Amino acid sequence: MSVSSQASRLVSNPPAIAEAHYRAAADPYHPERNPAGYINLGTAENRLMWDVLAPRLHAPRRLTADDIGYAALHGTTALRQAIAGFLGQSWQADVDPEDLVVVSGATAALDAIASALCDPGQAIVVPAPYYSAFDTDLCGRSGARLIRVPSQACDGFRLDPAAVDQTLTDARRRKLAVRAVALTSPGNPTGHVYPPPTLRALIDVVQRHGVDLISDEIYAHSVYGPEPFVSVRDSRTGTGHSPRTHAIWGFAKAFALPGLKVGVLHAGRHEVRAAAQAFAYFAPTSTDTQALLRELLADPAWTGDFIARGRARLGVSYQHASLLLAQQGIPYVPASAGFTLWIDLGRWLEADTFAAEESLWLRIFQDARVNILPGRVFASPRPGWFRLCHTIEPALVREGIARIGQVLTAVEDKEKIA
Amino acid sequence: MSVSSQASRLVSNPPAIAEAHYRAAADPYHPERNPAGYINLGTAENRLMWDVLAPRLHAPRRLTADDIGYAALHGTTALRQAIAGFLGQSWQADVDPEDLVVVSGATAALDAIASALCDPGQAIVVPAPYYSAFDTDLCGRSGARLIRVPSQACDGFRLDPAAVDQTLTDARRRKLAVRAVALTSPGNPTGHVYPPPTLRALIDVVQRHGVDLISDEIYAHSVYGPEPFVSVRDSRTGTGHSPRTHAIWGFAKAFALPGLKVGVLHAGRHEVRAAAQAFAYFAPTSTDTQALLRELLADPAWTGDFIARGRARLGVSYQHASLLLAQQGIPYVPASAGFTLWIDLGRWLEADTFAAEESLWLRIFQDARVNILPGRVFASPRPGWFRLCHTIEPALVREGIARIGQVLTAVEDKEKIA
Repeated sequence: MSVSSQASRLVSNPPAIAEAHYRAAADPYHPERNPAGYINLGTAENRLMWDVLAPRLHAPRRLTADDIGYAALHGTTALRQAIAGFLGQSWQADVDPEDLVVVSGATAALDAIASALCDPGQAIVVPAPYYSAFDTDLCGRSGARLIRVPSQACDGFRLDPAAVDQTLTDARRRKLAVRAVALTSPGNPTGHVYPPPTLRALIDVVQRHGVDLISDEIYAHSVYGPEPFVSVRDSRTGTGHSPRTHAIWGFAKAFALPGLKVGVLHAGRHEVRAAAQAFAYFAPTSTDTQALLRELLADPAWTGDFIARGRARLGVSYQHASLLLAQQGIPYVPASAGFTLWIDLGRWLEADTFAAEESLWLRIFQDARVNILPGRVFASPRPGWFRLCHTIEPALVREGIARIGQVLTAVEDKEKIA
Repeated sequence: MSVSSQASRLVSNPPAIAEAHYRAAADPYHPERNPAGYINLGTAENRLMWDVLAPRLHAPRRLTADDIGYAALHGTTALRQAIAGFLGQSWQADVDPEDLVVVSGATAALDAIASALCDPGQAIVVPAPYYSAFDTDLCGRSGARLIRVPSQACDGFRLDPAAVDQTLTDARRRKLAVRAVALTSPGNPTGHVYPPPTLRALIDVVQRHGVDLISDEIYAHSVYGPEPFVSVRDSRTGTGHSPRTHAIWGFAKAFALPGLKVGVLHAGRHEVRAAAQAFAYFAPTSTDTQALLRELLADPAWTGDFIARGRARLGVSYQHASLLLAQQGIPYVPASAGFTLWIDLGRWLEADTFAAEESLWLRIFQDARVNILPGRVFASPRPGWFRLCHTIEPALVREGIARIGQVLTAVEDKEKIA
């Protein structure tokens, strides 16, 4: 009584982020009730906006009979129009609602674009370190495989279009069928915001190689640094209408609604849009929730204020966490966006290996009961890096970083004795 | 700039029901504003319950911060517990919430179970006529293929476990790798409720052949005839705990909430549950909507009354439609459940062929502008049968059947002249 080989493969390779999240979530820390519980600094969840969101979520819903009936499975026209207006303003570009495909979460959107582009065995090139769930989201159902582009720690793991170019050239020489390049923009785990010249160079690279560019822009509205976010579909890239570029967006991050599972794909060309619509049939979004989001976006004053307050709070959260890290002597890559810090615990490793990284991770997760994710699951080019999420209650961030500091101190003490 | 072969296949084979639905929905009939518009008797949508539902949907939602955060992607514990209680009562069986996998619609649940069981090229046996979207839902992503079991029009297209047995034996002889038998229970398009001895015989067949049984029970609570619905997981089958049986359920039909996209798989064995959970990662359900449904099910008095009223209204709708059909001299299979009537227009075909069925369908769809679905898309064993949905405003059903009658009269007049 077995299952399919695809099912066996998926079951035996659960996404690392989800696994750690559920273990931590099952036994959460509370200062009085459960002081030995887990501090979850592993899940990129925005817990900073509930007070602003709650009144909108608790308000009576203006649903009609049509709102609960069968609708287009790639998103209602009303929601796609609202999203097109919202993204068009952010991107400084015209967005056609017909080019948007709304599915049940950004994961489903990544699956749709990967399955639209790749047959099993074909490849997607990803600059590393990359969003850990790409392994499952882009490959789990499509059967595609990832080819990593290394980056340099000394350079702060900057995105390098020339390195992407080189990897694509090497892949062609090795007769590998590459269909796309995928990245997170802003970067996850690095928190980098990419400048337009970098994006322009990257789009030029994919166009020359005849592959597509998948830009996961889920953190587009979670920028707190001085540089503006620029989408691959943005007019400011100078190539915003390239049929080769496809952007992914959603309500999980800046809107702080990860449970609502609303992911959006903006397809750069007709064939990809049609394919993504066909995949949306298998992962549609609740029209009840779509109606809620349509109402939120229909109020630009509220939305604008919400996004602005969100960015301000993210900046405060980042400053708070980075100060605590500095106090512990923990280096990190300066970030401008997102919910995470990419921290360097390399000097506390027993050896310069991923096995040593795993040992340190186990001490932090099992002994100190803090969930942060090891760099290996982000395909970090070097061992010793970890991703730490800071967008939860500041007291929890303080407790979590203090516990990490205790582990590091214990490592140092052991070294001194030895 | 092409797309993957899976994407090409899906795009070139859109599900017939969805295609006709969107064409009809784009230009709907209205007695004054659009008298030449489409009457949609093709989509199995329950438009009879809005007055009862609306107050619950419009009420303020009691959401907490946890309700919008990351939750188990196969359904929140609270919703799975509520569904387990509800289904357990219906099934007269203990239902463990851990055996339930909640995904974004019954289609996603069918995809999950088919992908869990089948590798590409493996087969699922389906008694015909069968729910038309099985072609896409069970095969579109899994790569499985369907093998039909014919039934007899003279016998009212009854489900025949002996014929399923014979098909499985034949398939084995032809070295085909069959992994499952799939059916709708109650039957769609027939509206049949299967008696426990039939289900027991069917479960015995699948167990002997070492294959799984996928029972799509989306119409479980839409029974208006005298026979009680019995699930394949029901204690009354005497085999309700078989690890080989898997049931699918959802909120689209009796709860009249098809837009909310909440499908449920009850897995009969651990490996299938684990596999379906892995696929749920790609098609999760909005936690906002899950909270709404949890609240509905938390009120058993309201739910019980709602289901009872729904059944009564379905019975009235069925009586109304079948009387109108009888007045037009249109034969149909007597039904006990569901939203549809399986009607016989065979004597108005120009020839006893599916090409003639297509011609008649085109006259009804294009000339009379009534959307009913031809039997071919349900793999009807004989040409001339059509599925007609009656669960909309009675005046629309009356207008639709009158228009069909006009087409049939025109056919008869032409025959008389000839």
